[in-house]
Amino acid sequence: MPDPRPNIQALDPYAPGEQPQGAEARRTIKLNTNESPYPPSPRAIEAMRAVAADQLRRYPSPSAADFRQAAADLHDLAADQVIATNGGDELLRLIMTAYCEPASAPEPTGRGGIGVTDPTYSLYPVLARTHGCSITVAPRGDDFALADDAADTWNAAGCAVGFIVNPHAPSGRMSDVGRLRRLARRFNGVLVVDEAYVDFAPHDALGLVRGDDAEPNVLVLRSMSKGYGLAGLRLGYGLASAELITVLQKVRDSYNVDAIAQAVGTAALNDVAYARTVWQKVVAERERVARALRDLGFAVPDSASNFVLARCPEDAPTAGDLYRSLKQRGLLVRHFETPGLDDRLRITIGSPDQNTRLLDELADLLNPAASPAGDAA
Amino acid sequence: MPDPRPNIQALDPYAPGEQPQGAEARRTIKLNTNESPYPPSPRAIEAMRAVAADQLRRYPSPSAADFRQAAADLHDLAADQVIATNGGDELLRLIMTAYCEPASAPEPTGRGGIGVTDPTYSLYPVLARTHGCSITVAPRGDDFALADDAADTWNAAGCAVGFIVNPHAPSGRMSDVGRLRRLARRFNGVLVVDEAYVDFAPHDALGLVRGDDAEPNVLVLRSMSKGYGLAGLRLGYGLASAELITVLQKVRDSYNVDAIAQAVGTAALNDVAYARTVWQKVVAERERVARALRDLGFAVPDSASNFVLARCPEDAPTAGDLYRSLKQRGLLVRHFETPGLDDRLRITIGSPDQNTRLLDELADLLNPAASPAGDAA
Repeated sequence: MPDPRPNIQALDPYAPGEQPQGAEARRTIKLNTNESPYPPSPRAIEAMRAVAADQLRRYPSPSAADFRQAAADLHDLAADQVIATNGGDELLRLIMTAYCEPASAPEPTGRGGIGVTDPTYSLYPVLARTHGCSITVAPRGDDFALADDAADTWNAAGCAVGFIVNPHAPSGRMSDVGRLRRLARRFNGVLVVDEAYVDFAPHDALGLVRGDDAEPNVLVLRSMSKGYGLAGLRLGYGLASAELITVLQKVRDSYNVDAIAQAVGTAALNDVAYARTVWQKVVAERERVARALRDLGFAVPDSASNFVLARCPEDAPTAGDLYRSLKQRGLLVRHFETPGLDDRLRITIGSPDQNTRLLDELADLLNPAASPAGDAA
Repeated sequence: MPDPRPNIQALDPYAPGEQPQGAEARRTIKLNTNESPYPPSPRAIEAMRAVAADQLRRYPSPSAADFRQAAADLHDLAADQVIATNGGDELLRLIMTAYCEPASAPEPTGRGGIGVTDPTYSLYPVLARTHGCSITVAPRGDDFALADDAADTWNAAGCAVGFIVNPHAPSGRMSDVGRLRRLARRFNGVLVVDEAYVDFAPHDALGLVRGDDAEPNVLVLRSMSKGYGLAGLRLGYGLASAELITVLQKVRDSYNVDAIAQAVGTAALNDVAYARTVWQKVVAERERVARALRDLGFAVPDSASNFVLARCPEDAPTAGDLYRSLKQRGLLVRHFETPGLDDRLRITIGSPDQNTRLLDELADLLNPAASPAGDAA
């Protein structure tokens, strides 16, 4: 039996947040994977129910033509500036396949790798290790601000692709477009601006791929998972110059997005008015939750996303203890056991009732005698 | 703007068969991409319509747990011997990612590449060029028989993975399991037995991955596209030793199969009795079409698949002319413009009415004056 490539043998795969299934799922308040607390547009559901047997029987449109046109119309771009992918994750993989230099060492070094910040979305380095390319880290400050010299750090290492998730994960902090543009201009590789969470933010970075001011080396990632309540559908898309999109189209699987996802995703984009009402509700709750957490003693930086990163009070149970206690009480939040993050909880914004329940449970865990939840228990 | 990897710049992407959309699709008799002429199981359609908004809102089971169990039950294997993928194409990519040595040359050479036969499914070399690994070809005979020394050819080149599509594409010829087992034992790499078309064949090769006689280096690919009428869904799976499946699970995207595909695919596997009635109808029609084509002067080798490869009569219009004439008349078949195949048509078996229409049109094109279709035109 042959051995896998050394980098695959050494690979520690991406650990998705817990996904309880069946009865356990119905009992759990799930604030750990940044899903929407609201269902997708009724028109998206209708589109799914309307898919005919014949559409399942036949191969889908290889290029997801209708979906791409809907995305182009929504963002005032041309359809050849859009690629549809099996979740945003596929787009991240495609850009590495197209531009990054692979090797098969356990810890690849050398030029042509990826640049990331620290912390960042933990899938980027996992995909780089799977591909077999090097990883260069530009640290963020204590406040998670993007460093002005990130491009220099990446250029010095010969990075072919750099990844900025904006709003930032896991902090929710937003970098402004001017800073991203300066980074794109200084960076010698392709800059991926991962806007998975941008629907909850005050602005986006599409000015970097639109019109005369477009930066040719910028690829913007969008996801239907959070803002459109379609995490179960696996649908994302990329926006860039037609030249860059053509390269990515060459390396994707032939029929990478299924017929149902194309139909449902198109209907969801065409009903962006519904999605906007959801975004407004989530943003309003985010502000309420952040204030309430601060009142409980957590340090909560401003978030432009559908989650907050809350540093636990020093005189309280540890973040790990709080995570486990909440889980026992049927609430899942995310706790990262990595240095610099292990004293925090990343909490997805849920429905108003879910958020209130979370805040009550936290109040009880921090001060068992005083809170109403404590009285009730 | 940085350049893509040299192999990506040089890449000629996979050309899928034509997929007319909308009104054109309804006018066309589509016998070019080996789709099923019959709809999927009614239970599969019901499963799609029953998907709840909440299942769309949440991430799916990362490992497609229910679907894998259904496949394991159907094939008398353990669930950890099954991986679910976004179409069989994803599985082909995963095995290369895990085992093949990538480089970034326009035409990579060197050990750790893939072994194929010629002809074969044209996606294998495209995926290898995308990954950036070498390709070693073991020719098939004029009758498309698998050569006994294919393993030696691949071993001499240091191939890490070998691909056999069985039944063979595009000929439909079947290799027996004994021959595949000898190949697996002689080959130093992982042998992929691509059974995308096996539902229409008299036997399968699952004995190579089941029980005490299992070969540890064999991976069997299955597809829901043809036999289950679910090409639009993008769902396939791999069957192998738990050890090999564990490697593949590490390199797939985190949520590679969406929630709807998991639900629909599980329902389809659980209603295999329905699928079997479809397979029987297709096989009966395949035999009728092959006989009728031979009566028209085509040379048609026995096929164990849902298509036939018909070599055109010498005194007739060329295969390319027949392809174009059929297309003008609203029938799509597949014509490959590659040496050794360019004098043939690959014809998917359709419904009885579609097949009769095809045979009538071909009779007319070969002998315009005599045939009933000619009279009518």
